[in-house]
Amino acid sequence: VQVELFIDPTDDRGIATQIYAQLRDAITDGRLVTGDRLTPSRMLAGDLGVSRFTVTDAYARLSAEGLIEGRAGGGSIVSATSTRAEVPVAASGLAPTPRAAHIARYAPDPTVDARFDLRPGRIDPTLFPTDTWRRCTVRALQHAPPAYGDPAGTIELRTALARWVLHSRGISVDPMDIVVTSGAQHAIDLVARVLVEPGTTVAVEEPGYPPVSELLRVNGANVTGVPVDDQGIVVDAIPPSARLVYVTPSHQYPLGMTLSRPRRLELLRWANTHDAAIVEDDYDTEFRHSARPLEPLQRLDEHGRVVYIGTFSKTLAPSLRIGFAAVPRTIGPAIHALRQAIDWCPPAPTQAAMATFIDEGHLQRHLRRARRVYGERRHLMWTALTEKLARRGRALPSDAGLHITVLLDDRIPDDELRANTRANGLRVPPLGDSYRFTTPRCGWVVGFGAIPTPDIPDAVDALTTALDAATQPPR
Amino acid sequence: VQVELFIDPTDDRGIATQIYAQLRDAITDGRLVTGDRLTPSRMLAGDLGVSRFTVTDAYARLSAEGLIEGRAGGGSIVSATSTRAEVPVAASGLAPTPRAAHIARYAPDPTVDARFDLRPGRIDPTLFPTDTWRRCTVRALQHAPPAYGDPAGTIELRTALARWVLHSRGISVDPMDIVVTSGAQHAIDLVARVLVEPGTTVAVEEPGYPPVSELLRVNGANVTGVPVDDQGIVVDAIPPSARLVYVTPSHQYPLGMTLSRPRRLELLRWANTHDAAIVEDDYDTEFRHSARPLEPLQRLDEHGRVVYIGTFSKTLAPSLRIGFAAVPRTIGPAIHALRQAIDWCPPAPTQAAMATFIDEGHLQRHLRRARRVYGERRHLMWTALTEKLARRGRALPSDAGLHITVLLDDRIPDDELRANTRANGLRVPPLGDSYRFTTPRCGWVVGFGAIPTPDIPDAVDALTTALDAATQPPR
Repeated sequence: VQVELFIDPTDDRGIATQIYAQLRDAITDGRLVTGDRLTPSRMLAGDLGVSRFTVTDAYARLSAEGLIEGRAGGGSIVSATSTRAEVPVAASGLAPTPRAAHIARYAPDPTVDARFDLRPGRIDPTLFPTDTWRRCTVRALQHAPPAYGDPAGTIELRTALARWVLHSRGISVDPMDIVVTSGAQHAIDLVARVLVEPGTTVAVEEPGYPPVSELLRVNGANVTGVPVDDQGIVVDAIPPSARLVYVTPSHQYPLGMTLSRPRRLELLRWANTHDAAIVEDDYDTEFRHSARPLEPLQRLDEHGRVVYIGTFSKTLAPSLRIGFAAVPRTIGPAIHALRQAIDWCPPAPTQAAMATFIDEGHLQRHLRRARRVYGERRHLMWTALTEKLARRGRALPSDAGLHITVLLDDRIPDDELRANTRANGLRVPPLGDSYRFTTPRCGWVVGFGAIPTPDIPDAVDALTTALDAATQPPR
Repeated sequence: VQVELFIDPTDDRGIATQIYAQLRDAITDGRLVTGDRLTPSRMLAGDLGVSRFTVTDAYARLSAEGLIEGRAGGGSIVSATSTRAEVPVAASGLAPTPRAAHIARYAPDPTVDARFDLRPGRIDPTLFPTDTWRRCTVRALQHAPPAYGDPAGTIELRTALARWVLHSRGISVDPMDIVVTSGAQHAIDLVARVLVEPGTTVAVEEPGYPPVSELLRVNGANVTGVPVDDQGIVVDAIPPSARLVYVTPSHQYPLGMTLSRPRRLELLRWANTHDAAIVEDDYDTEFRHSARPLEPLQRLDEHGRVVYIGTFSKTLAPSLRIGFAAVPRTIGPAIHALRQAIDWCPPAPTQAAMATFIDEGHLQRHLRRARRVYGERRHLMWTALTEKLARRGRALPSDAGLHITVLLDDRIPDDELRANTRANGLRVPPLGDSYRFTTPRCGWVVGFGAIPTPDIPDAVDALTTALDAATQPPR
């Protein structure tokens, strides 16, 4: 049985006492249990470089206390019943900074105890290409992982990603301008740490995606919400002091509209005039249900203003932690240096597996399949929502992604909405969760990524039931 | 051939022109190359939801320009030679913040063009347990990865790590107080982001490990160097304003001494009196060559002052990116919330593989083997250095880790040291690289992790040759 013993010749308790005390602790806190054999005294003395007498002295004290007993044939075994001590809780101690002490958590609850999981951003894990991904990983692990790598990612993966966004989104980017990250949020964090100083004004869409607002706030930004209309973010309403604007132009979260082409050009002009950065989060447009995508801002950007961010959290699995950013060349070196300072580089085996997965066409094949499944779910969800909620509200058109937002005519408090959906076996967030700066509109953000296709009609029925319950005459 | 076309009905150029312009771009920038077949006009019209006439109009213009040509039997193919356009470089553009613009890079150069790699912190990749790690990973990938997980890591891995540090270092920590990170530096970054505000005084050892100083500076800290003597950091010299003290008590980097027990107790008292945190970086004590380790600070800490940090970068491979922190309960929630805000959670498959690797005893077996190999190298290196450099300086005793620091009697400028070692086929940093606040002492930090055992005598010969060359009579 291995118990580390720490011997300090300068400790005035003496060596025998140190050995005794540490073995006693090991017994009382359960590292050594009844029947465990102690290292023979001769061997332990040799290991520690002390006299054998010192060790037998320590053992004798433990024996006198009834904690160990000698064995015929030599050796000692633990005789006491272990009494596992409570881990001590610090009485006083360290305190986080005020800003760090109040980081809001948007914990995606891992336990779904509901019958219908309609949370947005959730995907169907059964679509994950388990065998293919495992094969790609096994190949990546044929050899020992390399030493520290490039903080921006391997050249193989960056090249694969550059080809991928060129073909899938028409984005022309040099692989050297790609930075591999641990997901979209990590990419935004890197960008913020390079562009945001304490007090910098940063603009986000309202309603929007609160975890990103919170991330920007954590980085010291003064975050402000800018309204969106049917063409997307209202550029005129962006405060002139903003140095960074975070947008979801392909598929506004949560309302679902596309940033119109005139608005795109206006936003780019605005950024150029105001010396600001645009973070274009293309979080789910791989699942496009329309034939008419608009050009990414990155593609229209002539002045190095746009950071384009993509993720494989929706297309593969969020817990793989793979995303990327295409960054203007003027901030690339700072991002590389930052990444190296805080975390050296992305993990090598995952990068190698992902590069193979793209290069061999698995990603494209996987997406084709996933698009079919999600496309059908979207169609069913859209049809059911528009039919069944027609007199109570409306589903907002949405050409991409894995959710449909519903606006309700009633003004039901979010807590009541939440309680009633839970009571009807649903997990679905009120639209109000997406507002941080203004009075929320009443509705739901209805995800259809995680729910099995056949369950969709019943889930929408449960939604209408929840709605009926919520609008009983005032109590 | 797939080229994404973006159609915007509000674009006043008209749809045919949009199709024409985008296909022309695709040809000139190399996405479409000679011989590629264009999507038949009827099919493309259907895909885009436009009239077929619109598409044939666009094709006709491309044909008129000689970019495509019709084929007998229908269809068009690309006829132009692609002339891959240069990716445009932003003329003006974004600029990083002053702090982010000047992050020092300690790039571990991946290319070793030298005969002898004596860089500290380097390990022997041939020791990596490739087959076992692959088996553990394959098992982790039997099923689809889960959705987002706990930002502090899976309970399985945190439990395995808690057991591991209990047995290997005598540290008693509740698994709930373990945070899984992407290596040691990432753990320090998380702690700094929770404890450091702009201008906070942070103390590091001088000489020390510059990448960590830089990381702390990136987080806004006012970093100050504290001298070390033969007992480790001089607690009396820590500025009273310091709110965080970063130390390497088991094996001071780079000088190699152990923080003495009286000094440990003094440091803990100091931290408690001054309301400061201690970050205990236990970066390489798995490779202990002495039987007398001292108790970790974490084990002696009664007031929740110590963050204990470990990594598998030395024991397995740095590019796996696996480390952890044992954090006082008073800052755990802030660290979890921060991790979730910036990056949600550690990657699931790696965590599952690592938990299996520990639980099944592979880590312990691997370490036994690695300790033997590195122990022999250390012995050879120590013997050769003390013999051959006896009249020019001395090797500093070091009970752990993968490097030995050499102090030279001469005062040779670092640049000359570097040039002469390079000229003699060596990669080894001058000791001066570890100083940031005071005048460096002359010497080398000699790593023996990466060099094959039989090469050690020749490498030390090359060091002495380099030294001879450096101290020719003044030019």
